[in-house]
Amino acid sequence: MLKHALARPLSLAAAVSLSAVMATTVVADDGLGEYRDRFEPLPHLPPIPADNSLTPEKVELGNMLFFEPRISASGVISCATCHNPALGWTDRIARGTGHDGQIGARNSPTVLNSGFLESQFWDGREPDLEGQALGPIQDSVEMAMDLDHAIERLNEFELYQKKFAEAYPDESDPITIDNLAKALATFQRTLNTPNSPFDRYLRGDMDALTQQQKDGMVAFADNGCIACHRGPALTDSNFWAIQVPGSTDVGRYDVTGDDADMYKFRTPTLRNVAVTYPYMNNGATETLEEAVAIMGREMLNREFEDETIADITAFLHSLTGEMPDFEIPALP
Amino acid sequence: MLKHALARPLSLAAAVSLSAVMATTVVADDGLGEYRDRFEPLPHLPPIPADNSLTPEKVELGNMLFFEPRISASGVISCATCHNPALGWTDRIARGTGHDGQIGARNSPTVLNSGFLESQFWDGREPDLEGQALGPIQDSVEMAMDLDHAIERLNEFELYQKKFAEAYPDESDPITIDNLAKALATFQRTLNTPNSPFDRYLRGDMDALTQQQKDGMVAFADNGCIACHRGPALTDSNFWAIQVPGSTDVGRYDVTGDDADMYKFRTPTLRNVAVTYPYMNNGATETLEEAVAIMGREMLNREFEDETIADITAFLHSLTGEMPDFEIPALP
Repeated sequence: MLKHALARPLSLAAAVSLSAVMATTVVADDGLGEYRDRFEPLPHLPPIPADNSLTPEKVELGNMLFFEPRISASGVISCATCHNPALGWTDRIARGTGHDGQIGARNSPTVLNSGFLESQFWDGREPDLEGQALGPIQDSVEMAMDLDHAIERLNEFELYQKKFAEAYPDESDPITIDNLAKALATFQRTLNTPNSPFDRYLRGDMDALTQQQKDGMVAFADNGCIACHRGPALTDSNFWAIQVPGSTDVGRYDVTGDDADMYKFRTPTLRNVAVTYPYMNNGATETLEEAVAIMGREMLNREFEDETIADITAFLHSLTGEMPDFEIPALP
Repeated sequence: MLKHALARPLSLAAAVSLSAVMATTVVADDGLGEYRDRFEPLPHLPPIPADNSLTPEKVELGNMLFFEPRISASGVISCATCHNPALGWTDRIARGTGHDGQIGARNSPTVLNSGFLESQFWDGREPDLEGQALGPIQDSVEMAMDLDHAIERLNEFELYQKKFAEAYPDESDPITIDNLAKALATFQRTLNTPNSPFDRYLRGDMDALTQQQKDGMVAFADNGCIACHRGPALTDSNFWAIQVPGSTDVGRYDVTGDDADMYKFRTPTLRNVAVTYPYMNNGATETLEEAVAIMGREMLNREFEDETIADITAFLHSLTGEMPDFEIPALP
């Protein structure tokens, strides 16, 4: 991406703007500072809760548990089945497919940068990753495992006895549901993707984006996408009503029972959106171009021109960051 | 393991033998050379077929395909689901569990060192990894995917068009069933586990095994286990009749229809047997100790003493090698 951007000739406008700024500050600028100021680069780590410190021992244990299929009823489904590191830590199918091949109601969100979200799941039914972690294990369509049974299974392995004791050194009986959730949440807080071309651009590398990507950033801001897709993860973590093609999902209404929440979903992150297709709560939208057009139509009441769609799509491609380092654990 | 072995005091017999040999050859020896001569260390690579050269491009493509769930009917099952690198490249459940949660008839063998086997599957129904690779993709209980459909899916991705073209540069239309099989087989030929404690011992490191492991090696040879479990992968790749507890599986008879093949299965490799539990064609045997006792009883007509079982089990633990390097691929 960087190489490509460097190879592009500067547009006339950018070249003029660049020389004007260089005369006074010797820092190259493309004249889009007012736009850049409305965005935030992604930090390397999200907020860490005071009651679940991010220790190397907990990260290691959480890494093991994330890939552990023996905490599913079938013994073959782990968190990594639907949050597959080979597939942008999601599954790239329309809707999650789990226990006995059952197909869930919604598209599997990526776990990348999920620690930056202020609520979890499409409907925000859990406030944090600790709450989120236990959902799919128990869900009859996903891992279909009773949590007490999961704890019993883990207790059968000496290695887990050792690793839980290392992660929770002050506890006499550390293999608990709570500690399972805390370890999984801790591991997931390390799965972030900093240093995307857009992050490098926001930090001053004017060549990190192509001109089309910059045009897309401008269109993204000027058209109001940024109203909801803002902050480091490009989501306001708020809930907005939308019925995408083919969906009858009532969204957050299922959580609150409040008519005002009918069809509302939490704004998804746009980080790595190019590698976390398909899109929307029902996963029925295959391409970014279609997704941009649908969002313009449904949320902004605009029919985007093809050029605008192409520019915003190019911008969204600049949000793909460096995939996190992790190891496939050697499970017991 | 090495550290542990070095920390052990030498037994008197070993010490005497050691000093006797050192006096004449300055090479330490434990006096078990006649046993060592009956075994072979595991090479770093198995035989490579003349018509499927092992190129880096094919290894890379095969690595991608091995982790590719979109060549399953559900879109979530890949080779790595049942041959999970976190679980000794097998699944550590009794019998393979695949499409729609269906449970297969047999225990999933590890793919580690499978290139050393002279036939594939428990019943040897395929002669090589090229033939093996296509079985689970099509099997209705496993990935349940029509092969033509799998090829169509792969063709949808530009990255696969590129990677197949790189792997098969002389072909104008390289995404074929044959080339899918060849790439998967090539990747699997790299999944070997050399340098186990036993291999280091066979190469002259007298401290690589504990005394109990050496006693186990002697018992393994003297009791006749070595008759079938021989050669670098500790299998003769031959077929032998056995009905383990709980099994009514007719084995190779299903392949040949020959009464002489009733209940026959190919001798499994013992490489990494300690990390590829459970055991036997039906996966009903949980521990190595039970497995050793059953094999003594069923194949050798012997009731092993507890000490013999413990020694052989210790020896089998020395067959766990270095897990292969590989990368979780970034799939398209």
